[in-house]
Amino acid sequence: MSPKELYNVLNAVVPLYFSMLLAYSSIKHFKLFTADQCSGINRFVAIFAIPLLSFNFISRINPFHMHFLFLAADSLSKLFVLLLLLFWSHLFKNGSLDWSITLFSIATLPNTLVMGIPLLKSMYGDEQEDLMIQLVVMQSIIWYTVLLFLFEFRSARNSLMEKRSSNSVKEERGVSEEELVHVVVANYSLAENEIQRSQFVTKVSPELEEEEEDNEEKFPGIEELSKQQGVCESSVQVFSREDEIMREEHEKSQIGRLSVLLILRLVCHKLIRNLNFYASVLGISWALISSRWNVKKPLMMENSITILSNAGLGMAMFSLGLFMAMQPSIIACGKRLAAYGMIIRFIAGPAFMALSSVLLGIRGTTLKVSIVQAALPQGIVPFVFAKEYDLHPEMLSTAVIFGMIVSLPVTILYYMALGS
Amino acid sequence: MSPKELYNVLNAVVPLYFSMLLAYSSIKHFKLFTADQCSGINRFVAIFAIPLLSFNFISRINPFHMHFLFLAADSLSKLFVLLLLLFWSHLFKNGSLDWSITLFSIATLPNTLVMGIPLLKSMYGDEQEDLMIQLVVMQSIIWYTVLLFLFEFRSARNSLMEKRSSNSVKEERGVSEEELVHVVVANYSLAENEIQRSQFVTKVSPELEEEEEDNEEKFPGIEELSKQQGVCESSVQVFSREDEIMREEHEKSQIGRLSVLLILRLVCHKLIRNLNFYASVLGISWALISSRWNVKKPLMMENSITILSNAGLGMAMFSLGLFMAMQPSIIACGKRLAAYGMIIRFIAGPAFMALSSVLLGIRGTTLKVSIVQAALPQGIVPFVFAKEYDLHPEMLSTAVIFGMIVSLPVTILYYMALGS
Repeated sequence: MSPKELYNVLNAVVPLYFSMLLAYSSIKHFKLFTADQCSGINRFVAIFAIPLLSFNFISRINPFHMHFLFLAADSLSKLFVLLLLLFWSHLFKNGSLDWSITLFSIATLPNTLVMGIPLLKSMYGDEQEDLMIQLVVMQSIIWYTVLLFLFEFRSARNSLMEKRSSNSVKEERGVSEEELVHVVVANYSLAENEIQRSQFVTKVSPELEEEEEDNEEKFPGIEELSKQQGVCESSVQVFSREDEIMREEHEKSQIGRLSVLLILRLVCHKLIRNLNFYASVLGISWALISSRWNVKKPLMMENSITILSNAGLGMAMFSLGLFMAMQPSIIACGKRLAAYGMIIRFIAGPAFMALSSVLLGIRGTTLKVSIVQAALPQGIVPFVFAKEYDLHPEMLSTAVIFGMIVSLPVTILYYMALGS
Repeated sequence: MSPKELYNVLNAVVPLYFSMLLAYSSIKHFKLFTADQCSGINRFVAIFAIPLLSFNFISRINPFHMHFLFLAADSLSKLFVLLLLLFWSHLFKNGSLDWSITLFSIATLPNTLVMGIPLLKSMYGDEQEDLMIQLVVMQSIIWYTVLLFLFEFRSARNSLMEKRSSNSVKEERGVSEEELVHVVVANYSLAENEIQRSQFVTKVSPELEEEEEDNEEKFPGIEELSKQQGVCESSVQVFSREDEIMREEHEKSQIGRLSVLLILRLVCHKLIRNLNFYASVLGISWALISSRWNVKKPLMMENSITILSNAGLGMAMFSLGLFMAMQPSIIACGKRLAAYGMIIRFIAGPAFMALSSVLLGIRGTTLKVSIVQAALPQGIVPFVFAKEYDLHPEMLSTAVIFGMIVSLPVTILYYMALGS
C-alpha cells in the first residue's frame, strides 16, 4: 500500500471523525447545546437524515445484479456465529441467551451505512460502494429483524419466568408450550394497544406525553430516557413500554410453532414503527422498479431527497459525538468487558467473515472488502435495541463509542495487512 | 424562456421548499419536535451549518477577479435607498428612523446565500454563481455592519431620550452631543461587561444560565426568547441584554464624531460575536491567499468543512420551516403592512437595483442577475437583528415567512419577463 492510498483513506475518514469531535467538544468544552437541544438534533438525524440517506443509497442499486456470493458469505458468517452462541447458551452451564444476543450484535453487526460506505469506497474504489450498499440492505431488512426476534423471544421468555416465579413454582424446570403461548399472546395484545394509542412512534405530542405521564412513570420508554439523558436515538425510532416489566432470569425453554408465529407478529409490530426498515424496503422496491423498467426518479424528487440526505453523513457523526459527550464515561461497561468487546468486534468478527468468504471461494478485492467491513465500528441500531430492551446497554454503548476510537487504527491496519 | 428552462429552475427551488414544508408539517401536523428540540436544530444551523456553508462558498472565489461594476451597482442601489430613507426621516414629519431601518432591511437585503445561490445558478448557469457569492461577501461584511450601526445608533439615541424624559425635560427638543456621548459610553461599558461575562456568545452553559437567571429576568435576551418560542436563530448568534431597556421614541438628533466612533466600537463588539461575520472574513482571507499564491485547501480540511456545510442548505430551509410553524400567524404584522412589505421587497427593491445597474451601464445576463437577486425573499439576518433590537420584528418575520411563499411565483415571473 502506497502512502498515497493511505492519504486517500484518511481524506475520507478524518472528516467523519472531525464532525464527531466537533460535536463532542461543543458539549464537553463549550457547552453549546443543552440536553434537550441535543435530543432535537438526534431526532432530526433519526427521523429524517439517516432514513433518507439509506433510501438514497439503496434506491440506486440494481437488485438484479447483486453480488450474491458475497452476500451469502456475509449471511453464512452471521448464521454461524448465531448458531454457535445459541448452542453455547443451550448446552453450557455458563451460557446464557442474554449474552448470546449481545455477543451476536457485537460480533456481526458493524456500522455499514455511515462509516462503511465512505471508508470502503476510499479504500477499494467506487465500484466497491455497491457491495457495501448491498450489505446495508441485508442488514437492515434481514439481520435487524433477526435481532428483534431474539429480543422479543427473550422478553416473552422472561415474562413467563417472572410469572412463574411469582406463582412460586420455581422448583419446576422447563416451560410448557401452552404457558409460553399465553405470555406471548399477552405481550402481543399489550403491543397492539400501544400501537392504537400512538399510531406512529415519532408522533410525540407534548400534551399527549403529559396526559400519559401517570401511566408511564413505571415504564420509561427509550423516548423518555433519551430526553433525560440526551441519548443518541440515531437510526431507529422505536420504543416500548414493556422493557421494565421483564426481569433477567436465565432459563432455557422450548418453543412451539404458534408462539414463534406470535413473536414474529410482535416483531412486525416493531418493524412498522422503524423508519430505517421503511427506508430500506422503499429503497429496494424503488431499485427493483427502476432496474426492471429502467425508470429514473424525477430530478425534483431526487433533489428533494438529496438536500436532506446530504446532511445525513455529517449529522449522523455529529449526533454520535453528542451522544459520546453525554455519557458519564467512554468505557461504561468497565475495562475488562470493553477489552472482550473489542476483541470480538475487531478480531473474532472479521475472522468469521474471512473464514466463510474463503469457504465460499471468494478471493481478491471482494475478500478484502468482506474482511475490512467486518472490522468497522459497532452499528448504532443494535445499541438502540439493547437500550430499548435493557440488555447490556452499557456494553453496546462502549462498543459504539470506544469502538469508534479504536476502529480508525484497526481498519487501517487491516487495510495495510491485506495489501491494496 | 423554454419549458425546459423553467423545469430546471423548479428542480433547484422545489427541493428547498420541500425541506421547509417538511419541517413545517413535522411541527404543525405531526408534532415531531418540542420547542427545545427545535431550538437545538436551529442552533446547529446557526453555529455550524450556515457559517461553514458561507465559508465554503466564499473561500472558493477569486477576489482579484470580482465583477466590480456589478458590486458597485449593488452598493449604489443600497446607498441610494438608505439616503432616501434617512432624508425622509430627517425632513418629513411622518418620517422616522425606526421605519427607515426596517424599510432599508426589507428593500435591500435579500436571502442571497441559501435561496440566491441555488436559484440564480439554475436560472443563469454555473458561471453566475460567482456573482452571487460576491454579493454574499459584500452583504455579510459591509451591509450587515451598516445595519448594525443603524441599530446601535438608534439604541444610543433612544437611551438618551428615555433618560431625558425621565428627567422630565420632555419639552426641550434637540439632543446635545455631550449627552449622546455620555449615553454611548454607558452602552459601551455595558457591552464590555457583557463580553467579559460570556466571552463568546455561543458558549451558553446551563449552570451559568441558572446562576444568572436572577439578574436577567428583566432583560430577556434573544437567547431566552428563542428558547421559549423555539424561534429560528438562523444565521446569527448575537444576543444583547439591553434590548428591553430601550423604548421606542421618535426623535431626531445630531451626532458628533466621538459618539460615531464609540458606536462603531459597539458595533465591533457585536461583530466579534457574529459567527457569519467570522466565516465571511475567514473565507475572503483564504480566497485572497489561495488566489494570490495559488494554494489549495488540503483535501482533508476541504472534506471536513464540506461534510457539515453539505448539511447547510437543507438544514437552513428546515430551520426556516420550524420557525414558520412556531409562529402564531404567518402574517404577524397584519395584512396592510404585509402588503406594503411585499411591494417594497419584490417591486421597489428590484426597481432600485435595475435603475442603478442600468445607470452604471450593466447589460445582458449580469443585469438580469442583478434584478432577480433583488427579488429574492427577505434575508434571515435582518430579522434576527430586528428581533434582537426589538424593532418591528413581526414585520421582518412576515417578510421572511410570507416572502418565502410569495417569492417562488414572483422570481419566476421576473425570470420569464426578463427572458433567458
